[in-house]
Amino acid sequence: MIARYSRPEMTKIWSPEARFKKMLEVEIAVAECQARMRIIPRKAAQDIRSKAKFSLARITEIEQTTKHDVIAFVTNLAENVGESGKFIHYGMTSSDVLDTALSLQARDGLEQILKEIARLEKALLKKIKEHAGTLCAGRTHGMHAEPTSFGYKLAGFYAELHRNKERVALAWEQIQIAKFSGAVGTYSTQTEELERKVAKQLELVPETIATQVIPRDRHAEVFNSLALLTSGIERLAIELRHLQRTELNEVVEAFTPGQKGSSAMPHKKNPISAENLTGCARLMRSYQMAAMEDIALWHERDISHSSVERVIFGDAFILCDYMLSRMTDLISGLYVNKVQMVQNMALSQGQLFSSHLLLALVEKSFSREQAYAKVQALSHSLKAREQLKDKALKDPEVLKAIGAKQIEKIFSGGTHKAAIAEALKRFLHSIKG
Amino acid sequence: MIARYSRPEMTKIWSPEARFKKMLEVEIAVAECQARMRIIPRKAAQDIRSKAKFSLARITEIEQTTKHDVIAFVTNLAENVGESGKFIHYGMTSSDVLDTALSLQARDGLEQILKEIARLEKALLKKIKEHAGTLCAGRTHGMHAEPTSFGYKLAGFYAELHRNKERVALAWEQIQIAKFSGAVGTYSTQTEELERKVAKQLELVPETIATQVIPRDRHAEVFNSLALLTSGIERLAIELRHLQRTELNEVVEAFTPGQKGSSAMPHKKNPISAENLTGCARLMRSYQMAAMEDIALWHERDISHSSVERVIFGDAFILCDYMLSRMTDLISGLYVNKVQMVQNMALSQGQLFSSHLLLALVEKSFSREQAYAKVQALSHSLKAREQLKDKALKDPEVLKAIGAKQIEKIFSGGTHKAAIAEALKRFLHSIKG
Amino acid sequence: MIARYSRPEMTKIWSPEARFKKMLEVEIAVAECQARMRIIPRKAAQDIRSKAKFSLARITEIEQTTKHDVIAFVTNLAENVGESGKFIHYGMTSSDVLDTALSLQARDGLEQILKEIARLEKALLKKIKEHAGTLCAGRTHGMHAEPTSFGYKLAGFYAELHRNKERVALAWEQIQIAKFSGAVGTYSTQTEELERKVAKQLELVPETIATQVIPRDRHAEVFNSLALLTSGIERLAIELRHLQRTELNEVVEAFTPGQKGSSAMPHKKNPISAENLTGCARLMRSYQMAAMEDIALWHERDISHSSVERVIFGDAFILCDYMLSRMTDLISGLYVNKVQMVQNMALSQGQLFSSHLLLALVEKSFSREQAYAKVQALSHSLKAREQLKDKALKDPEVLKAIGAKQIEKIFSGGTHKAAIAEALKRFLHSIKG
Amino acid sequence: MIARYSRPEMTKIWSPEARFKKMLEVEIAVAECQARMRIIPRKAAQDIRSKAKFSLARITEIEQTTKHDVIAFVTNLAENVGESGKFIHYGMTSSDVLDTALSLQARDGLEQILKEIARLEKALLKKIKEHAGTLCAGRTHGMHAEPTSFGYKLAGFYAELHRNKERVALAWEQIQIAKFSGAVGTYSTQTEELERKVAKQLELVPETIATQVIPRDRHAEVFNSLALLTSGIERLAIELRHLQRTELNEVVEAFTPGQKGSSAMPHKKNPISAENLTGCARLMRSYQMAAMEDIALWHERDISHSSVERVIFGDAFILCDYMLSRMTDLISGLYVNKVQMVQNMALSQGQLFSSHLLLALVEKSFSREQAYAKVQALSHSLKAREQLKDKALKDPEVLKAIGAKQIEKIFSGGTHKAAIAEALKRFLHSIKG
Repeated sequence: MIARYSRPEMTKIWSPEARFKKMLEVEIAVAECQARMRIIPRKAAQDIRSKAKFSLARITEIEQTTKHDVIAFVTNLAENVGESGKFIHYGMTSSDVLDTALSLQARDGLEQILKEIARLEKALLKKIKEHAGTLCAGRTHGMHAEPTSFGYKLAGFYAELHRNKERVALAWEQIQIAKFSGAVGTYSTQTEELERKVAKQLELVPETIATQVIPRDRHAEVFNSLALLTSGIERLAIELRHLQRTELNEVVEAFTPGQKGSSAMPHKKNPISAENLTGCARLMRSYQMAAMEDIALWHERDISHSSVERVIFGDAFILCDYMLSRMTDLISGLYVNKVQMVQNMALSQGQLFSSHLLLALVEKSFSREQAYAKVQALSHSLKAREQLKDKALKDPEVLKAIGAKQIEKIFSGGTHKAAIAEALKRFLHSIKG
Repeated sequence: MIARYSRPEMTKIWSPEARFKKMLEVEIAVAECQARMRIIPRKAAQDIRSKAKFSLARITEIEQTTKHDVIAFVTNLAENVGESGKFIHYGMTSSDVLDTALSLQARDGLEQILKEIARLEKALLKKIKEHAGTLCAGRTHGMHAEPTSFGYKLAGFYAELHRNKERVALAWEQIQIAKFSGAVGTYSTQTEELERKVAKQLELVPETIATQVIPRDRHAEVFNSLALLTSGIERLAIELRHLQRTELNEVVEAFTPGQKGSSAMPHKKNPISAENLTGCARLMRSYQMAAMEDIALWHERDISHSSVERVIFGDAFILCDYMLSRMTDLISGLYVNKVQMVQNMALSQGQLFSSHLLLALVEKSFSREQAYAKVQALSHSLKAREQLKDKALKDPEVLKAIGAKQIEKIFSGGTHKAAIAEALKRFLHSIKG
Repeated sequence: MIARYSRPEMTKIWSPEARFKKMLEVEIAVAECQARMRIIPRKAAQDIRSKAKFSLARITEIEQTTKHDVIAFVTNLAENVGESGKFIHYGMTSSDVLDTALSLQARDGLEQILKEIARLEKALLKKIKEHAGTLCAGRTHGMHAEPTSFGYKLAGFYAELHRNKERVALAWEQIQIAKFSGAVGTYSTQTEELERKVAKQLELVPETIATQVIPRDRHAEVFNSLALLTSGIERLAIELRHLQRTELNEVVEAFTPGQKGSSAMPHKKNPISAENLTGCARLMRSYQMAAMEDIALWHERDISHSSVERVIFGDAFILCDYMLSRMTDLISGLYVNKVQMVQNMALSQGQLFSSHLLLALVEKSFSREQAYAKVQALSHSLKAREQLKDKALKDPEVLKAIGAKQIEKIFSGGTHKAAIAEALKRFLHSIKG
Repeated sequence: MIARYSRPEMTKIWSPEARFKKMLEVEIAVAECQARMRIIPRKAAQDIRSKAKFSLARITEIEQTTKHDVIAFVTNLAENVGESGKFIHYGMTSSDVLDTALSLQARDGLEQILKEIARLEKALLKKIKEHAGTLCAGRTHGMHAEPTSFGYKLAGFYAELHRNKERVALAWEQIQIAKFSGAVGTYSTQTEELERKVAKQLELVPETIATQVIPRDRHAEVFNSLALLTSGIERLAIELRHLQRTELNEVVEAFTPGQKGSSAMPHKKNPISAENLTGCARLMRSYQMAAMEDIALWHERDISHSSVERVIFGDAFILCDYMLSRMTDLISGLYVNKVQMVQNMALSQGQLFSSHLLLALVEKSFSREQAYAKVQALSHSLKAREQLKDKALKDPEVLKAIGAKQIEKIFSGGTHKAAIAEALKRFLHSIKG
């Protein structure tokens, strides 16, 4: 039921038709290389390139009898090619074509993912620059900790996304594998030279030592990279859900005219995109687990991975593509409520600066223990609407130790602002380079 | 891409159309109960029952604007009902109808599963009776241990299936939940009396204390039960894969004329159904994990479970239904190679009876340690084609302790045969009762 | 490294010593029944009961040679029993004693869990009653939805806990299984009568049809029930983390004198118990997955489950026991900030009552569509500090339709209060019965 | 209960003491860099290096009060350092030291893993060379497919292990991260210059943009790499379990004098190491899942990851180290039964060469369809003890098409032997380079 999330480009890559197209591409490349190496007649390769065609309906029909879809496919091609048809799939085992074709699909899929990551990076970057100086509360344990800026927050997500892009790129590289070593990977019916040539023609790399198949650790790495990527998206989604809570109200997902938030409660505007993405990340982790369990196939291969892969490859790529695209829209259309951010920071009554007060005291006459006890006592004694700054100014020991001027400076937020600006500058410089 | 595994009945239960039909059923039941309780006009309920219709296309169209599918659905119904339309969904929140409808779908789905379990039980029972006395090697660690019978083996799987049927039945019972307590489950717009009445009309039970939704531990229990069920199927599938190995060759999956096992190797007959089912069990466990992560929703509910459930409910039920049906076919068509089973037992050179030799020695003059050492020594000294029985007969200590007659009896297999027959009789009697 | 979470009672149940004690209990019960059935001499059983002792050190020593811990254990017992020692473990296979002993450990462990659940229920119940009428915002999507009460909130968690208690109780019931059917479960060396008698003496039920072991679906069900239980605890923990956020500030975990929240920021009081519990739930789900993968053992058994179970049984039970206990403390010591709850509700500017306004309009002259549009428009036009009630009072159409008196009533919260009180009364009544 | 699997070196890395040692190393490096940068007095740094000591007992004692282990640790250090103690942890937040120390532990742990991988590679390589030409059945679906060699089989596992080594090496590289950007990662109390310097001193790399912590995608990547590694070990373990089955009997795990396989059945030698490793891989995948769920922390961090990591880091590394070591022993001590391998191949009655017969026919006058049908018919008509070669020689069409000489050549196995030798030569050459 992944249909719900399917976008045309990615869905096309994983359609049954696209799969057979990749398989045909592989069969043609094999035939052409075999012709060049004089393994099959040159005319056979020409015929195969020009006449090999398939129809889904016909393949399904043949599969009723053979119960083997590659044989049905090859039979269908051969029907269309005529006499040269017998040179299709020459010396190959099904997995040679299946797995190599899967590599091609995965390559296309991952390239689409990488494109969508780039779009999300761009959307994030725009917001980072826009809100480089938009101060807001940094939170740990869900509690106010120290000030940060909304742009800086997003820069952290950008950095994680970038790491995940590199992981996906590595997964992309290591899955570009061709395998034409035949039945149990021993090159008994095809030479390594042929494998090398076909791989080159398809812009793939031959598997070092295959079994009947390309070993499934490669495919699992693909899923691991996608699950890391989408768990990063989940982290961002959860951030945005938090910031949209009624009490925080710091950001709002774009709400279009006519949109409704609840069938019962007309006032509601809900973070539905972010929530949707949170759930999707759970799905991706579940596909990852299934892919991990596919690694330990029996001997030179059993076929238990196949029923899994028929579901998870298409579903996971479609889902991941959807998630990236939806997050890009979410970020692009995000309304940032700067005023509320400032108001929320005020809730802490100046405690956001407690660590700086602590440090200033330690620099002077206080021991760390004394300073900590002092600042904690001042903080925990705050009544509604009181400010930690005022408490500090009124505390004789504190005042004596660091003086009013420095107290004012600590609570101005200037230090944080400057530090964040500096860090963001460095960061933006680094990603340009 | 679960389409690959879809069978019509189950697929229908989880179609978008079926979902809206269940939602309509719920809306009508609510309206009728509200009319009986004089909350809405009697005519409104009559109109709603007779005129409320929906079209998928129209709902999709409205959803473009509202971005909320329940509102789109209700709007579409109202369009068709006319003036009384405003009494549709009266006092309800979306989750009231969504979750109650999901309970109805899950009920139907689980009933279909239970039906398929019953079919598989029947197929197993037939084979159990057929092969009650078909002796074969019992294996631990993949090694011959002691004799068992193929029927007895299957009886173990039957017993597990039966436990899983009870688990599924419990999951079915506890998911038959209606929820009409409104926005955050507080009955502020509907009374508990109405909930009780509508639930009764739908043959459901009201949720004890709901949040905005029926809590997701109930749904997770459904997935837990299905994952237990399918892991049991996996255990059987793996048993059958093992027994089909070239070297064991004790059973064969039905192979139909024209079927092909490999595109390269024309001789192959492969255990593809059993392998397919093994992979499917991995998928089910992955859906289970996603369902478990859905439990901890925020506050009275966030909507993150929704993007997960749109995929896993349909997919998991379709998959489970397919697995049961395919396993039923596999068991029904299974060829059991009795001759090979006997030949394989001979491979152990009589060691299958080593525990009985041990016991006989202990009963006489041997200490347990001495007896173990003796039998292990005799066993490990066996050369090709030698029999443990002959070793025992030739060993003066053994011979002296228990005599030739008992040695012959131990290695006849009679004790095992009788014990298995007795145990199976008890078992068959118990499942009749 | 589960040591971090170990509490003495549960840790003791899963200690190596406790395991051997249970195994000894099983061996003694077997010997006594065998003596009564005249399978072994009466004196042997008496000697076994009175003299069978083990020492961990000696078992470890013997295991160096045998590489089989049950044999080492039995050998150690036999050394201490003397001549009758050879009748220990008579006719049994290791799994008979191992699995039956594991059932006994699991029974004890689950009983400890059930006790801790009861303690948590009690703590929750106290708070439910205390805060039955403590109104606070009910939230969906993290946004204010409608009012609820803190007691009512907790009642939802209580109800889930109660369902999980029943699941754990079922898991407890179905794991109380004895198995003495010997090598591959065929009763070739022990009769079913003996199994029945020993089971009775140990207050267990014999396995229907065993393999070499008690099938692992039973153990997986135990883990499923614990994972459901702890995911419910996680849901509560996340609720409490949300409510403790700086901006919500509705509850506070007990903070003891001298406690520190952050090494850098002296002002911090953090929801560390609730966060800790959230993480623990992830661990439990991971143990669940491992237990699920243990089901599909090969043939009559392989031993791959053993390396898993040596870790997950103790770890999961210790963790679960710790989680229940920590949550009980958390609930018991929880400070509930009623004033803040009221203040937070005010943030919604009356929108918490929008659904009631909608309903009132629909009851009168408005169509559902018109009413929705009206209330949404009023809500979305609210400026800071404005109240939806005032907007409604000033809107001529609304005023005309339902009048000022009803508008006042809608926004008084009285309906919610009464509904919640009624629902809670019913609930409290139901759990008394 | 991971204690069962702990080996001293790895266990030491993850001991509580080692953790605090790494934290101390970090605190000292910070103090020294701060002194060089004139942030704290030079004498303070000297005192810290020379006097800072901790005791587990004292930390535990202080933690009773502070409920914060880093503060307890720093307090304990300060007690021992005296007056300069207040400059310990200067300007740092707990996570600065905790996460940087964790990076150091992970680095050490992964280096130990990499060492163990190298040992396993060496053990494999020895066996690969030894059995380069040891022909045996290659199997797909658990059925004989075509001949391979035992050395070639192992080369496939070696190649996978090598990929996993590279993945672990990448994980190792990307986890060598220092973080000293303070409370919410904004450098408000420490400069980026200081971070850079301390990182350099510790031979680490500063985090690009941190939150309060080093983002958990890095840690999840570590677990992903370990789970891939151990799933590869599982694949090998399952291969070895299969080959040890009674009916295959192609390899035997070393069995030491005095070892016992079963308490009931003295004849048993079981693949217990391989089975144990299979289970361990399930555990590793479960730790992986928990690590994946740790990524999406709230805001600048919540502490929910901590209760997970306290368990999974030590447990997973200890387990992985154990698995590598046990697999190395298993491979080193493996007995390979060459005679049985040849006998098993004979079971296929020549069908292992069916693909070559097929190809030969296609090269001549047969269409692919005809050739397939012919070879399948010959194969499926084989009676016990008949050879496919003889069937081919007696079939007029086959004989006419390819002649007796080629038939003999096809069934000699020479082609396979040569191809495997060639492929292995290439492979061994490649790993030398």
